[in-house]
Amino acid sequence: MEKIRKFLEEDIGQGDITTALTIPPSITVEAEIIAKESGIIAGIEEARTFLESVGFQASALVADGSKIDRKRVILKIVGNAQTLLSIERTLLNLLSRMSGIATKTNRVVNKVGHAGYKTRVACTRKVAPGLSYFDKKAVALGGGDTHRFHLDDLVLIKDNHLTVIGDLSEILKKVTGTVSFSKKIEIEVSNAADALKAAETGADIVMLDNFSPEEIREAMVLLEKEGLREGILIEASGGITEENVLEFADTGVDIVSLGEITDSAKALDISLGVVKIKKE
Amino acid sequence: MEKIRKFLEEDIGQGDITTALTIPPSITVEAEIIAKESGIIAGIEEARTFLESVGFQASALVADGSKIDRKRVILKIVGNAQTLLSIERTLLNLLSRMSGIATKTNRVVNKVGHAGYKTRVACTRKVAPGLSYFDKKAVALGGGDTHRFHLDDLVLIKDNHLTVIGDLSEILKKVTGTVSFSKKIEIEVSNAADALKAAETGADIVMLDNFSPEEIREAMVLLEKEGLREGILIEASGGITEENVLEFADTGVDIVSLGEITDSAKALDISLGVVKIKKE
Amino acid sequence: MEKIRKFLEEDIGQGDITTALTIPPSITVEAEIIAKESGIIAGIEEARTFLESVGFQASALVADGSKIDRKRVILKIVGNAQTLLSIERTLLNLLSRMSGIATKTNRVVNKVGHAGYKTRVACTRKVAPGLSYFDKKAVALGGGDTHRFHLDDLVLIKDNHLTVIGDLSEILKKVTGTVSFSKKIEIEVSNAADALKAAETGADIVMLDNFSPEEIREAMVLLEKEGLREGILIEASGGITEENVLEFADTGVDIVSLGEITDSAKALDISLGVVKIKKE
Amino acid sequence: MEKIRKFLEEDIGQGDITTALTIPPSITVEAEIIAKESGIIAGIEEARTFLESVGFQASALVADGSKIDRKRVILKIVGNAQTLLSIERTLLNLLSRMSGIATKTNRVVNKVGHAGYKTRVACTRKVAPGLSYFDKKAVALGGGDTHRFHLDDLVLIKDNHLTVIGDLSEILKKVTGTVSFSKKIEIEVSNAADALKAAETGADIVMLDNFSPEEIREAMVLLEKEGLREGILIEASGGITEENVLEFADTGVDIVSLGEITDSAKALDISLGVVKIKKE
Amino acid sequence: MEKIRKFLEEDIGQGDITTALTIPPSITVEAEIIAKESGIIAGIEEARTFLESVGFQASALVADGSKIDRKRVILKIVGNAQTLLSIERTLLNLLSRMSGIATKTNRVVNKVGHAGYKTRVACTRKVAPGLSYFDKKAVALGGGDTHRFHLDDLVLIKDNHLTVIGDLSEILKKVTGTVSFSKKIEIEVSNAADALKAAETGADIVMLDNFSPEEIREAMVLLEKEGLREGILIEASGGITEENVLEFADTGVDIVSLGEITDSAKALDISLGVVKIKKE
Amino acid sequence: MEKIRKFLEEDIGQGDITTALTIPPSITVEAEIIAKESGIIAGIEEARTFLESVGFQASALVADGSKIDRKRVILKIVGNAQTLLSIERTLLNLLSRMSGIATKTNRVVNKVGHAGYKTRVACTRKVAPGLSYFDKKAVALGGGDTHRFHLDDLVLIKDNHLTVIGDLSEILKKVTGTVSFSKKIEIEVSNAADALKAAETGADIVMLDNFSPEEIREAMVLLEKEGLREGILIEASGGITEENVLEFADTGVDIVSLGEITDSAKALDISLGVVKIKKE
Repeated sequence: MEKIRKFLEEDIGQGDITTALTIPPSITVEAEIIAKESGIIAGIEEARTFLESVGFQASALVADGSKIDRKRVILKIVGNAQTLLSIERTLLNLLSRMSGIATKTNRVVNKVGHAGYKTRVACTRKVAPGLSYFDKKAVALGGGDTHRFHLDDLVLIKDNHLTVIGDLSEILKKVTGTVSFSKKIEIEVSNAADALKAAETGADIVMLDNFSPEEIREAMVLLEKEGLREGILIEASGGITEENVLEFADTGVDIVSLGEITDSAKALDISLGVVKIKKE
Repeated sequence: MEKIRKFLEEDIGQGDITTALTIPPSITVEAEIIAKESGIIAGIEEARTFLESVGFQASALVADGSKIDRKRVILKIVGNAQTLLSIERTLLNLLSRMSGIATKTNRVVNKVGHAGYKTRVACTRKVAPGLSYFDKKAVALGGGDTHRFHLDDLVLIKDNHLTVIGDLSEILKKVTGTVSFSKKIEIEVSNAADALKAAETGADIVMLDNFSPEEIREAMVLLEKEGLREGILIEASGGITEENVLEFADTGVDIVSLGEITDSAKALDISLGVVKIKKE
Repeated sequence: MEKIRKFLEEDIGQGDITTALTIPPSITVEAEIIAKESGIIAGIEEARTFLESVGFQASALVADGSKIDRKRVILKIVGNAQTLLSIERTLLNLLSRMSGIATKTNRVVNKVGHAGYKTRVACTRKVAPGLSYFDKKAVALGGGDTHRFHLDDLVLIKDNHLTVIGDLSEILKKVTGTVSFSKKIEIEVSNAADALKAAETGADIVMLDNFSPEEIREAMVLLEKEGLREGILIEASGGITEENVLEFADTGVDIVSLGEITDSAKALDISLGVVKIKKE
Repeated sequence: MEKIRKFLEEDIGQGDITTALTIPPSITVEAEIIAKESGIIAGIEEARTFLESVGFQASALVADGSKIDRKRVILKIVGNAQTLLSIERTLLNLLSRMSGIATKTNRVVNKVGHAGYKTRVACTRKVAPGLSYFDKKAVALGGGDTHRFHLDDLVLIKDNHLTVIGDLSEILKKVTGTVSFSKKIEIEVSNAADALKAAETGADIVMLDNFSPEEIREAMVLLEKEGLREGILIEASGGITEENVLEFADTGVDIVSLGEITDSAKALDISLGVVKIKKE
Repeated sequence: MEKIRKFLEEDIGQGDITTALTIPPSITVEAEIIAKESGIIAGIEEARTFLESVGFQASALVADGSKIDRKRVILKIVGNAQTLLSIERTLLNLLSRMSGIATKTNRVVNKVGHAGYKTRVACTRKVAPGLSYFDKKAVALGGGDTHRFHLDDLVLIKDNHLTVIGDLSEILKKVTGTVSFSKKIEIEVSNAADALKAAETGADIVMLDNFSPEEIREAMVLLEKEGLREGILIEASGGITEENVLEFADTGVDIVSLGEITDSAKALDISLGVVKIKKE
Repeated sequence: MEKIRKFLEEDIGQGDITTALTIPPSITVEAEIIAKESGIIAGIEEARTFLESVGFQASALVADGSKIDRKRVILKIVGNAQTLLSIERTLLNLLSRMSGIATKTNRVVNKVGHAGYKTRVACTRKVAPGLSYFDKKAVALGGGDTHRFHLDDLVLIKDNHLTVIGDLSEILKKVTGTVSFSKKIEIEVSNAADALKAAETGADIVMLDNFSPEEIREAMVLLEKEGLREGILIEASGGITEENVLEFADTGVDIVSLGEITDSAKALDISLGVVKIKKE
């Protein structure tokens, strides 16, 4: 809530001069927020709570995560005209972005599911700066897995950690000896040998980074041959897109993660129209 | 700066446990930020200033707004390994987003320019919530026009203002009588008749909202016939995309504005690699 | 609102110990805010909204911008006694300052208007640090023009910009080529020759800085002779006060701007009295 | 420091477009801040520390609290031209306000001192909202007494506390029994009888509120007759101005407090000029 | 309130995933906060106001400062289940800490009072960082004296000030000449000779720092011999604990101050239980 | 860092008047921070970084987490006297609290280790409001396990969740189906039967809440009999203290968690002394 208020302040500057000059302060209006494209709606709850906190009656006509057709009214709002016109753009920007992400996520999840794979579709930390909470919530509403929230809720050892330290086993020993029992440990590896080493030393999750589907298959075979596939999750990441996702799902990994569902999703076209004026 | 620090805090939570557990505090590294795709780079200045404010030496190898080829090193960084690995993702997210927007803007601007049109390409207020400053700066670096920053730096009378008040001339009279001499006045109209009325009553800019190219042409003819084209800027907005932009530029409007350059641009693929370790 | 809360926090420190020690938490009182001098009232809307946000019933007896006589009750407040006594000073400080500015502005505006001039009276950016929004709103309520809000809503090229760059035409060419179409361009000049140059190169507004009334007249004659007076606004600034304003208005400029209406206005004497106690 | 940065942010909005468009980022300049009127300078230390924190070399040519003649250079600044032109107004607004308050305070203090009175001249809490720290520091630099800072550093029982509770002795008993030994207790009274009662019950300071000089004299006589003048400070407040201050000082009170030194002081005219350009 | 909200944000991170995953958003519950140990309750008012501000009905069954037996229900809460489970820990942490401090303070105050001494029991500034307001309020509710709130509400000259300046009399002269009349002056001394000097030069309070009870007695005798005991408060500080407090009270000092009541109090065991579910 | 600055602001109010009145601004001093008791030092890194950020040279003489004897100098500081005396208390409060927690944690960890148990000693979320980061870091430095940081980095189903939902298996099914693969799942149970059910349904960690040592033993036997002990961590919580911890460690649980190491630790006695003055 606090955060949406900050977005608003930034947008408004010293006040919405157009509205102040043209709309009398006493007018109450009824307005509708309409999705002009079909897709998965996300952000309704944030929008409704925010609207109520600034004095509007707001009723959601669809629930977050619902699939809607184009021209669907998603929220009805009654309240002060000046305030509504001043917050309109901020509200729509949030709904459009979150719904765009949910829609793209959902298309990928369905593509994988309909093809018969059980692979989870996850996002990465490639979010818009400052919007991590909203972007990840949209992924969840689209049916995706949110992965890490902060840098402190999973130990994820990446390529640059290895470049600095050099030895995978040394790092893993250090980590498993000191990290809180409440955290999982994930290791990003760039070749099958390292994947084996990670699995042996006690990683909970192994991320195969920038592997081609064939390279993934070879690593999976190796892991199974050594009896290390059980009790470990395998995540494929890097270069995976809505287009090629099935090739990766087909390798048998547990999770595929895609940066583009959060950093390159098309915004859903959503607009607000005043439908009734109640002069006071 | 303050803002980037906020983004960082949000990302980090209570600290980057992976880095704290694996990297000794005294190690200094040299790293490179590399654009893995070609495009227009934006955000270098923000990145460099931020890096310096948290104690790094950072040297930009390209200037903001430059066109770069893929695999180009854009920033060299020397400093503390722990800190660098903790801020890596936030930094890359900002650069990727800004460069993605600059790249898309630039493609549209060039398409219009190469086709021989003088039309300005502008963005709208359809930005990511909280990122207005960064999104608009990226548009400028891509060669686009930033349009309004806040709700207080241009009087822009939109459809919903008209729905509430009803009469265009009444609104305009009110506005021109009271607004500060330091502001321009723009009116969004939905038909040619209103465009004429707006031009007559003293608008500085008339925005033709959701007009087809043909409808725009008719409105332009009408304005010229009435001798109202001089001294007024005409902006076309709504439904304009990178694909169809030339049809709109061809109508002779002064400005075309596109929401998609800020709300649906693909992020540019940018990554950070540690290239040298200096143990201390 | 947020801002007024910040003012309050600063004033209160760790709590109002006098009130905590003397007033039982359950007492409700009725109080009146009274203007002890005549003047133009400003800040009523801010005061009322703030009072309501912290749980009071507040009814305004006069509207912002009204001219009132001394001893006039302007707000009636009902609510918790402890809270009221703790916020009293902050509330009065805001109302006194805004009303003082509105009153002074209004005297200047009336002096100019009653003498038959159409000149606009504007403020400058000489506000109290952190109070720009409130000071400018007070100017508007007093009938003055608010001029720029932020550094980003008008291009205003000043003496120091010229000192750094040197050539007025060079600057103007740069600016008109790159600034957004949504902004006006104003240039501050220190002699008639530069005024001409500015008008020729496409400035929307020319500010004659620290010109004597005679120097202004000479510049106006020159501009008209060259046919450059049309379509351009002329602003006089520097050394203008409530006392000498008519000499400047008489020169035929469009706008006179005065720093003293915001940085040297006398606060209006306003006080709060408890009028009825309702023990609970 | 934090606070000045906030003032700056507010002023700048999304950036200083004029400066960004006209001044190359690499230019270094030398500038001077000049007092165009004589007076007491205040705010130099805040200005200097702030300038250094944003990368300037700043050398103060006069100390805070010094009396200066007109046209005196008070600060020399060397640093980035873009930054300097963006922060110029905020810096000058702070210096002008603080110096204006220090100057007015100093005139009052000198008037009282030169007339041979030992009376302390104090300010009240009638400051500009959000500027309490700066306004009070300016009073101190002008030679005045800062009185309370927050609502928690002195117990000050005022008229509205008495209106709510009714009985002065009851309140005083409550307060002296519970307040921390580290605080003084002051009571505002509106007649001589209450002044006596306050002095008897253990107040450290008695404030005679809105008493005429004659009424004050009568109260003083009464207090002395009852042997209550010793060990108690008497403050006169309400209706005291630079003009009539000697009439109040002459009554023998220990302190006179004036709202106008903080809420109605004329800003000192201070400006910034670029004196040398060092292109880089 | 603002502050408690900040505590909450810090605790919650990106949201309470357990509650979000397990509890439907529409469920309303009734819950009780129970003190599992006997003690003095503190923080009820903060808890209640905060709960109401986030939409709960909250009724306090005991008043702040009451002595309660174990297993006593202190607050009843009705409201949304998801929200309640998310804020539970933050709420309990605040109540437990404040009640722990109030309980320890009260034990010390009673020990001193029951032994027949009139000595005030005060806390110091040894609070938890950021919790000064809450820790000091808890001390007051336990019957202790809150001493200074900020560094600006009492002049307290300590050992390190003396180390820097060297001469006690010099410092005192400086201070009494310039400090506002609204502040008391306290001096920390480390031997009887300095105590005398402080009393002579006009200190309101003399703090005997790290004196043994015998050393205190000697200093008191000296002060009385010189006729300096009247009108001055004597505070003993340093090395005083709940165990040895009577030895210090017995010396006749006016105030004893103990760091341990705020920095080493045991938290009171308080828990929250859901007692009734109202599915909606 | 930001956070420590906030603590400081709160403490300082409008400025440290004692220091401002007594210490000239130009004096540089050398000071030492000394631990007056033996214990484990924590907070050195925070203190040093903060001191450097406000312009001091600070050199740590011991590392965070070291065991030190009484009277040990832990930090040497050189810098401005005024600033140092103003931040002294805030700095010491942070160091004392963190070192107190680290010391208590360490005693518990050693007691368990020396008795030959491998049980991990963990803290809970019973921290001081707003100090979660610092309290948990101190636990880690004392050799303890930090457990959850935020509500979003582990799914922890507690008694109140079960009270609301009723059926443990139903909750677990819901959770395992939807939670991100990056999180562990912990369930708090109040009897052996529920412990079994939790282990069967896929919890990563089972917390035995408020079990006596005997009850724990019975539950452990049951789990092993059903072959559910492997791959699951067992945590004992509730009623465990430094005194009785061995009885719980002896039951064979993997983790014991104690609220008192963070909410009831005695602060370590640490002080700051100026040792050398360098007048400038």
